[in-house]
Amino acid sequence: MSAEIPIYDPELLKKYNLGERHETLKGDESLCVRPLYMSDYNRGFLELLGELTEVGNISEEQFQEQFEFMKNSHGTYYCTVIIDTIKDRVVGASTLLMERKFIRGCALRARLEDVVVSPNYRGKQLGKCIVEILTNLGRALGAYKMTLDCKDSMTPFYESLGYAKEPGNSNTLSIRYAAASKPEPKL
Amino acid sequence: MSAEIPIYDPELLKKYNLGERHETLKGDESLCVRPLYMSDYNRGFLELLGELTEVGNISEEQFQEQFEFMKNSHGTYYCTVIIDTIKDRVVGASTLLMERKFIRGCALRARLEDVVVSPNYRGKQLGKCIVEILTNLGRALGAYKMTLDCKDSMTPFYESLGYAKEPGNSNTLSIRYAAASKPEPKL
Repeated sequence: MSAEIPIYDPELLKKYNLGERHETLKGDESLCVRPLYMSDYNRGFLELLGELTEVGNISEEQFQEQFEFMKNSHGTYYCTVIIDTIKDRVVGASTLLMERKFIRGCALRARLEDVVVSPNYRGKQLGKCIVEILTNLGRALGAYKMTLDCKDSMTPFYESLGYAKEPGNSNTLSIRYAAASKPEPKL
Repeated sequence: MSAEIPIYDPELLKKYNLGERHETLKGDESLCVRPLYMSDYNRGFLELLGELTEVGNISEEQFQEQFEFMKNSHGTYYCTVIIDTIKDRVVGASTLLMERKFIRGCALRARLEDVVVSPNYRGKQLGKCIVEILTNLGRALGAYKMTLDCKDSMTPFYESLGYAKEPGNSNTLSIRYAAASKPEPKL
């Protein structure tokens, strides 16, 4: 059922000279960066996300439904993966989320989400690679700023890539809901 | 050109007993909470956002285009306003953003954005009112958590409403792009 359907136009990475020419990937021709494909369900995408947090059992149908929703939210979700093309597996991933605003002349705010690299591929700077590519994509798509939230242990990594705490304005607060239910039907 | 078009289904607030029955609004019958309407361009919505940050000159056409995009991103943008029905003006606003994830069983993450109350209406707990309503809406729509980022000076306010810093995991980092350009056409 699943196919080589990209979640966003792959030409976008080429248009902005992102992905293929990244220096990290030049050193290893077996690796490539591209948009998430619907068929990546079978390339270990969800298992990789499991390195980051709880994923649970997601059927291929459920995955495809979420994928279709994101794909049809034109210009909102830029789920991006690093593929080991020899093993045909997803070995790194992150999502750039573009949020529409009314402030700042109907601006776009970019958000970096769910950055993860396979433990077997650490030390190759693939985290740096995917963060740099999505940070540049956020800029290229016209965001006025790009933000992320992270654990204390990850702040040096992101600071090394140009992210910074804004003095007096760098707090993430949250409420976790006890019983997360299934999403409502589309409204 | 503009009309009483809501950015999301107003029945949703009724369905979950939000909005109309909020205790803050019970004390002042001239105030009501509802989804942003396209016609709120003419009720001072953008001027109100100007209390929060830079808004710039946004034409009615530009506003309507952004509004339509958000409205058509089914179930993503819940821009909500408090209206003084006697003066027919927007006096408070915030947006609940629902982000689709693959993690946690294809979960939804809720985000609270752009909370603002007119200076003339401060002291009436309208900020508390709109934050509580959108926090409950995020839960009702099935989010596993709801987050916000804020200045140090605002953390006591949000903590009083149930939000908390997670120990070791409460950092917002950002990059601000110097020359934010217009968004690309939809991709």
